[in-house]
Order: sequence, then structure tokens, then C-alpha cells
Amino acid sequence: MSDENFRRPAVVLLSGGLDSATVLAIAQERGYTINALSFRYGQRHEYELHCARRIASNAGVRQHSIVEIDLAQFGHSALTSDIAVPKHSLTEEVGADIPVTYVPARNTVFLSLALAYAETLDAFDIFIGVNALDYSGYPDCRPEYIEAFERLANLATKACTTGQGRMVIHTPLIQMTKAQIIQLGLKLGVDYAHTSSCYDPNESGLPCGACDACLLRNRGFEQLGLQDPAMFR
Amino acid sequence: MSDENFRRPAVVLLSGGLDSATVLAIAQERGYTINALSFRYGQRHEYELHCARRIASNAGVRQHSIVEIDLAQFGHSALTSDIAVPKHSLTEEVGADIPVTYVPARNTVFLSLALAYAETLDAFDIFIGVNALDYSGYPDCRPEYIEAFERLANLATKACTTGQGRMVIHTPLIQMTKAQIIQLGLKLGVDYAHTSSCYDPNESGLPCGACDACLLRNRGFEQLGLQDPAMFR
Repeated sequence: MSDENFRRPAVVLLSGGLDSATVLAIAQERGYTINALSFRYGQRHEYELHCARRIASNAGVRQHSIVEIDLAQFGHSALTSDIAVPKHSLTEEVGADIPVTYVPARNTVFLSLALAYAETLDAFDIFIGVNALDYSGYPDCRPEYIEAFERLANLATKACTTGQGRMVIHTPLIQMTKAQIIQLGLKLGVDYAHTSSCYDPNESGLPCGACDACLLRNRGFEQLGLQDPAMFR
Repeated sequence: MSDENFRRPAVVLLSGGLDSATVLAIAQERGYTINALSFRYGQRHEYELHCARRIASNAGVRQHSIVEIDLAQFGHSALTSDIAVPKHSLTEEVGADIPVTYVPARNTVFLSLALAYAETLDAFDIFIGVNALDYSGYPDCRPEYIEAFERLANLATKACTTGQGRMVIHTPLIQMTKAQIIQLGLKLGVDYAHTSSCYDPNESGLPCGACDACLLRNRGFEQLGLQDPAMFR
């Protein structure tokens, strides 16, 4: 196989939000064949899965797997249980506290399943849209967390321990502001009308405009002097 | 609450096999309140879940959660797909090769979910029956793998990053032979008749006697001059 024709496979964690849609476009631009992975984990904002399917289909990915996993049975998060999603609560100092929307060990669970998926595809590249700047203060979005997972991944898997390759966790957004992410995504042709960031959308999927995720997203578009196309879909 | 009456909660990964049944007894003996966690992950040897329920119930655990997670949709293992379980194939040098019964990233997925469960219980102790001596050569059973997961766990979770405690992954069997594990379990009152180790049991749950897991188990009982009670249940 010539190097020119060979496109390496990658797994892209695709929630259906603004960040993961951008990450998918970045991975595609870098020449990877995309295998997208989404989760139905008992989230109350299941509308994002509708968006994930549409993004994956528009991007022409090789495969899109949606894994069912009942994180809600463990409870303890506003995203999966009856705890109310806080509104208008974004602190000035982003990340100062860990909010009630934190889902226990969510990224560890998601990355583990991405690792399992990657291993069956002979893929050594996993893309995740975590962000340590304009983010909600979750511990499993920090660079030191991602580094620890990458280290684990290279001890965990058959392919890595037998020297077939080295697993890399790509976090292209980790040091970008929301405005920078949007700017890059628009350059790459991402249609943000088909993304959903809201933790508490209404039945038609319209964002509440007041949860942390909405406030961060809105601030990003505002800083660029743009209107969020998701408000008009 | 007096220290004497307070029993710390622990999560015990309980497959229903010989090792995890022993680990549960060890954790109980150390004074923990047990929250057992099992998985229906598309394994062909689902009989082990029947055993897990019985072990948990006999031990009087506080809680037993069975999480559904479809690892079979990723395929690529004799334990979850149509690949035949190898018989009479145990090499003299245990662990020399990684066999086709390896399920991609299984322990990473299981430990991640144990971590999520622990976090919702305010538990800082996770017990897993991995073994690096009489084992099948899976990379995610080695001490360096477990250490990497423990490191990750302490960066991943709200409780750990806010200084409420330190997550510990307990692997009491990691350096024991199968015979030593059985000996300890018998001392702690484990009834091995209600455990299932076989990768390919028949419909009534009787072990095949020829897969790696059966060969390792049988060798353990033989070395002690004992008969495996699971053969007579």
C-alpha cells in the first residue's frame, strides 16, 4: 500500500456538541479515516445524539458506533438524574469549582471504550474534544489527566504491549478558547447549526440559553461578533 | 459515628469466577462494606453472572449492580464473538502470548465503571482479582498496568482532586498462584461450587474442562490434592 493512499484510522469521541464536531473536522483534515463513537449514557440531553448522527453522516465517516451504557444507574449528576441543571451559574473564574453537572468518571469510561474500539480497528489515534480553558471545571478535562490516560492506554492493550504501535490521545482543543474553537471550525466547514451543547434543551432540542454549556457557547459566538446558527435551526 | 462501627465502603469487581469470589471474601475480612459490580458485556459464558448473583447474595453484600455494556459490538475476541475458544492450548510458559480470549481493553472498561460507581458511593477502595502469575497473559492484568490505573483514578475524579481521599486499587491476588488463592479462599469460607471460571461452559453451566481458564483452575485444585466442587454442583 502506498503511503499516499493509506489513511490511518482514528477513533473520534463525538458527543454531538460544538467541541467534538470541531475535533472531527480537525481529524479529517489531518488525513485520518474517521470512526466516530457516541454514547447513550442516560443523559437528559439526548438530543445531542441526534446531532451526533447528523454530524457523522454529513462528514461521511467510515463508521459511527453508539454504545449504550447506563451511567444513570449510578446517579449523582445533574446530567443523568433528578438534580436540576444550574442556570446562570457560570463563575467568573471558570473551573473554580466542580459543578453538579459533573458525571462521575465520565471521560474515563468514554476513553476506555474508545480504547477498546480503537484496538479492534488497529487504530492508534483517539481524538477527544476536552478543553481546559473555557470549560466547566471537570477534573477529567485537564492535561495531566489526559497524559495519565495515554500512559495507561499504552500498558493496557495487546497492540501496544506487543510493540505494534503507540496509542496517542489527541486533544487539539485543550488550550483554545471557545471563540478560537469556533473560528477554526468555521474555517474547516463545520456547520454549528447541527451541534447541541445545552445540558437542558427543550423537546425540540432548542438550547435553554442559561446552563454553563450555553453560557460558554454563547460567549464564544459573541466574542466573534457572530450569531449561533443553532438558535435558528 | 465511632470508628469501630464505621465500615468503609468498597467496590468489588465480581465476575462470578474463582478469583473474584476470593477477592470479595478478602475485602469482607478486611472490614469493608461490599458493593459488588458485575457486567453483562456480551460474554458467551454468561453463566458466570448467575454465579456472581449467588456469591453476592450468600455474602450478604450491601449492593450488587450488574451493568449492561455491549463490548461484543466491537468484536475481536473469542469471549464475545464467533471465534472459537481454544482448548488444551495453555502454554508451559504462562503469559508468553496474548490469547484470542483477550477482550480489548476489558479491564480498563471495567475499572472505569468501578471508578464511577465508587465515586457515587464515596468509596475510595476498589478490589479486582487480577493475577500476574497463573494467568492467561492479558496485558491488563500486570502490576504496572494497575499502578497506571490507580494514578489515573486519582486525577480523574472529583473526590480525589478536591482532597477528600485517595483512590486505591486493591489486587490482593496479583502475586499468588491459583493453588494459594484457593487455599486462602477455603480458609475464608468461599464455596467454590458457586463459582464459574470456564470460558465455554455448556448450557447448564458445567465447565468444558479444556479452555485456559479451566486448565488453570484444575491445576490449582490438583496441586492441593482437592477436587473442584464446581464439577459436582
